[in-house]
Amino acid sequence: MRALTVLPGTADSLQLDDIPDPPPRDGRVLVRALALGICGTDREIVSGEYGTAPPGEKRLVLGHESLGRVEKAPPNSGLTEGDLVVGIVRQPDPVPCVNCAAGEWDMCRNGRYTEHGIKERNGFGAERWQIDPAFAVKVDPALGDLGVLVEPASIVAKAWEHTERIGRRAVWEPRCVLVTGAGPIGLLAALLAAQRGLELHVLDRATSGLKPALVRALGGTYHSGSIGELGFEADVVVECTGAPQVVIEVMGRNAPNGIVCLAGVSAAGTQTLVDAGALNRTIVLQNDVVFGSVNANRRHYEAGVAALLRADQAWLRRLVTRRVPLSRWREALEPQPGDVKTVLDFTAAA
Amino acid sequence: MRALTVLPGTADSLQLDDIPDPPPRDGRVLVRALALGICGTDREIVSGEYGTAPPGEKRLVLGHESLGRVEKAPPNSGLTEGDLVVGIVRQPDPVPCVNCAAGEWDMCRNGRYTEHGIKERNGFGAERWQIDPAFAVKVDPALGDLGVLVEPASIVAKAWEHTERIGRRAVWEPRCVLVTGAGPIGLLAALLAAQRGLELHVLDRATSGLKPALVRALGGTYHSGSIGELGFEADVVVECTGAPQVVIEVMGRNAPNGIVCLAGVSAAGTQTLVDAGALNRTIVLQNDVVFGSVNANRRHYEAGVAALLRADQAWLRRLVTRRVPLSRWREALEPQPGDVKTVLDFTAAA
Repeated sequence: MRALTVLPGTADSLQLDDIPDPPPRDGRVLVRALALGICGTDREIVSGEYGTAPPGEKRLVLGHESLGRVEKAPPNSGLTEGDLVVGIVRQPDPVPCVNCAAGEWDMCRNGRYTEHGIKERNGFGAERWQIDPAFAVKVDPALGDLGVLVEPASIVAKAWEHTERIGRRAVWEPRCVLVTGAGPIGLLAALLAAQRGLELHVLDRATSGLKPALVRALGGTYHSGSIGELGFEADVVVECTGAPQVVIEVMGRNAPNGIVCLAGVSAAGTQTLVDAGALNRTIVLQNDVVFGSVNANRRHYEAGVAALLRADQAWLRRLVTRRVPLSRWREALEPQPGDVKTVLDFTAAA
Repeated sequence: MRALTVLPGTADSLQLDDIPDPPPRDGRVLVRALALGICGTDREIVSGEYGTAPPGEKRLVLGHESLGRVEKAPPNSGLTEGDLVVGIVRQPDPVPCVNCAAGEWDMCRNGRYTEHGIKERNGFGAERWQIDPAFAVKVDPALGDLGVLVEPASIVAKAWEHTERIGRRAVWEPRCVLVTGAGPIGLLAALLAAQRGLELHVLDRATSGLKPALVRALGGTYHSGSIGELGFEADVVVECTGAPQVVIEVMGRNAPNGIVCLAGVSAAGTQTLVDAGALNRTIVLQNDVVFGSVNANRRHYEAGVAALLRADQAWLRRLVTRRVPLSRWREALEPQPGDVKTVLDFTAAA
């Protein structure tokens, strides 16, 4: 079968390989791939900066934003042939840490987790994949091919869940949300803000086109200036750019008791001048919180499915700006102007 | 009566004034001052950098770390003559924000609170003061003159409460705590860590003397090197130095899911080079939290009293390194080597 594989640590080693079908294993769900979303982490792996092959193997099958159809499911797995499923990316070590043991593997403490398509476990960028049913999430057929958005939606579902759990350290009545970055994660974070009835603001560099339109369709206000010019203070900031300067700016600019969720991964290596005394003073005197959120557990995948089902399906469909047949995978990995979410289509003819 | 007053915004305006006794007001508790703790905020006010006089007045009575004895209490106030009391520093606006209305005035959202001895409300640095019984905290007589530590203990009780509430966003089983700064707040934060049975580490610049001894007496390990040399990762960091470089270092150096509580107020104005991309990446990929904690509400004062009662009273007594009679107030405001907590004694003869 065809699979996209990389040599982790080596730049531009991505290729469409022919690899053996997964050997049938008892208790596993066999899934035929329908689609694969491409994200920044995939590009980081392709550039050789990130990623680890499974133990004893040289190459890693790429891909963690999956959608597939069940071909075969074990009895009592809650899944049957024909079901739409998404694979959970992270799996705990067989000897789990206390968080992993409780199903909170997104909060793994010892780093011994594996991740499909990222860390020591082959990804979903293959025509067929197998998975333990405990890590397969059933997707309502009403979502159809938009089920490929479940994994990014799980990321923002976790970000929002943790924001709210942290917020409830005291009275929690947020009014105003700022999302920085209008990529797929930012727009889905904005969707979840709108679903919570919050006043929504989204800031991105784009000055026109699809992103402002998608924000306005959620009832939000779109901004493309600087954070300092916004003229309001948000109770919640969901930072999705990963741009170091933006990260520093949002940390210090929010309402009293403000919560900044950092959800964008950035590269190290650029020094920025920061008035750390002023930043600390603001965070302390305003009881501010800055927290990082990565990955998601089963609860978040299920919350992601629920959020996508509640959304305007036409709006969701606009997030997927390119569907590229697997055979033209090179195009999918190349960012293009106007991209929001690019999806590799495993069902299309070349 | 004698009272320490300042002209807010004017450096070195502190003086021991003779001011009229507080006019008797129905429903108020009348308190005779026993002691007043001096802290960094007082020194900031004395240097003219902070503080606001009550509306219509020019001078502000200094002091927010109180201990007094009730001279007269309204019926049904829960207080009677002779009770030891501490005054709560912050009081909400008569038209409270949603947090203040719920008693969470430490988390005030609109900034319209007042603070005894700091913001628009006279402090406790007077021989007699009056207070609404809702803002008077009864102190167990077993604490005696150590009741002057209740206000700083309330600060760390809030810091710990919020750390734990934030921690419970997922499985919460912390093992190891680092406290940076071994001043009164740092040492009380260390006490509360020890009371929780956590592995305790305290880092401070002092290389010998009382601070290392006080940490060891809690069963903790004392460090005076750099954070980078510590060789372990803490699940909780309570940052009490307010030193910009320390703040930045602890933000990025802690265990996965680590919580950094910023509890030290720093001055603005110094630019530090920060690899903000690396910092963001660590916070995101480790699910780290950095939060600020200031002030305390009644629940935290009561938790502070309880923590002090559970402590070794001889250990607490060592925190008070100087007791200075009111008449020699100038000495109390001058930091001296070896100081931990300096207390102005209102009962001593000159």
